[in-house]
Amino acid sequence: MIDNPRSPRVRAVHKLAKRSARRESGMFLVEGPQAVREVLAFHPEIVGELYLTPAALERHGRLVATAAERSLQVETVSEAVIEAMADTVTPQGVVAVCRQPEVGLDAVLRPGARLVAILDEVRDPGNAGTIIRAADAAGADGVVVTRSSVDVFNPKVVRSTTGSLFHLPVAQGVDREEAIAAARAAGLQVLAADVSGVDLPELDDRMARPTAWLFGNEARGLDDATLGLVEHVVKVPIYGHAESMNLATAASVCLYQTAFAQRIAARRGEGS
Amino acid sequence: MIDNPRSPRVRAVHKLAKRSARRESGMFLVEGPQAVREVLAFHPEIVGELYLTPAALERHGRLVATAAERSLQVETVSEAVIEAMADTVTPQGVVAVCRQPEVGLDAVLRPGARLVAILDEVRDPGNAGTIIRAADAAGADGVVVTRSSVDVFNPKVVRSTTGSLFHLPVAQGVDREEAIAAARAAGLQVLAADVSGVDLPELDDRMARPTAWLFGNEARGLDDATLGLVEHVVKVPIYGHAESMNLATAASVCLYQTAFAQRIAARRGEGS
Repeated sequence: MIDNPRSPRVRAVHKLAKRSARRESGMFLVEGPQAVREVLAFHPEIVGELYLTPAALERHGRLVATAAERSLQVETVSEAVIEAMADTVTPQGVVAVCRQPEVGLDAVLRPGARLVAILDEVRDPGNAGTIIRAADAAGADGVVVTRSSVDVFNPKVVRSTTGSLFHLPVAQGVDREEAIAAARAAGLQVLAADVSGVDLPELDDRMARPTAWLFGNEARGLDDATLGLVEHVVKVPIYGHAESMNLATAASVCLYQTAFAQRIAARRGEGS
Repeated sequence: MIDNPRSPRVRAVHKLAKRSARRESGMFLVEGPQAVREVLAFHPEIVGELYLTPAALERHGRLVATAAERSLQVETVSEAVIEAMADTVTPQGVVAVCRQPEVGLDAVLRPGARLVAILDEVRDPGNAGTIIRAADAAGADGVVVTRSSVDVFNPKVVRSTTGSLFHLPVAQGVDREEAIAAARAAGLQVLAADVSGVDLPELDDRMARPTAWLFGNEARGLDDATLGLVEHVVKVPIYGHAESMNLATAASVCLYQTAFAQRIAARRGEGS
């Protein structure tokens, strides 16, 4: 059992909360039983190290069995060590160190892709994670995160996706113009969500088309040059007196609006 | 200037974070310049006491002017006092004590009401507040909160509504069956959001009708007896692999789905 919270190995794991350490090592942290279960189920090939406290070993027998099936060794560590490794206050006794998968634009914009989210300069880890989770829920084919956005392997982002990060391809570090051009080349219309746009229901007759939604920075939205590159600029209108809408909530409404319209059109036999 | 954080008056304000003190006094706390601005703009008649630090007095000249126009006296208090009064860590120098308005079911289900949210046993203050904010954004006519839900005058709820609590009528302490019956009597279909329901797009041809959405407890959803009282049980389907959806996000998707369908139908001249 590893029980020295100040050992170099423990420090190296903890350092993965920092972008520089993630860049250097190509690894990242996955914390808590749920997220670790998801990465083991969907991408066992990226799991490097697996650390559990004795209590967690007992509680999460199936997780341990899955790890064994994948020939992954589980290291037993003390409570103090798991706390020293984690970025979260409560990793619930389970931490994995994983290799950052290399996901290209082509993995997201596969032939037949019909719903994609592009995050441009989204800076808040919670927002980015929640949008990835919403994209997963809405059945999106993948997510593209442009260069100037938060790192999706930031532990706060990983946490907010509640496992969705491992469910669908997420390409990051992509150039904004390149992402928009690639979506269009793949046959998707690009709709930018921005307060300067037309009310979403006005695009009702276009909503069922294969679509890439472009979401911008929480405070500034998208810049004019970027808005000039897309087919339509669309806003989730505020019909009441609410001052604003949380970016992740607006993104969920947009993504589901497309997902619903595509299914309704398919049922009516008018699908594109 | 009030500068003793342990004075009975300061303690009495702070106590309003507790349900028992709110019930006894009929008052509640509104914290921070934005929320106080909203209550002054929409319901100045419920504002009782207004406390600002000297720094906040300088910074929020318009708020002070609005208060003066409404003949409301502003009390200057020290930083220590405002912190002792508030439930939040950062009330940003502004706290108001307001009278809980008495809002009945009839204020929500006014003639012509077309979109209403009913919260049944919603216990998390953040969820309740966020749903009230989403209902406001979606242009709902009002919100009904049943008896066994969180108190909407809980400071955490007030905070999460970011002012929306003052924008639309919110009736609370209502009996569940009574709320459903009243919605139906007012000509609204009642749609219960529950994982046991049909996928939302399957009700596409009913979405434009005047609708009351019923949202249940975060963990347990709605009970069978309640589901038996409504026209349709509907779920926001998870098309991908996401394990679940946050209640407030699902509620936002439902409320906007109705708001959009009603506007699209009105534009096509087929509105109900």
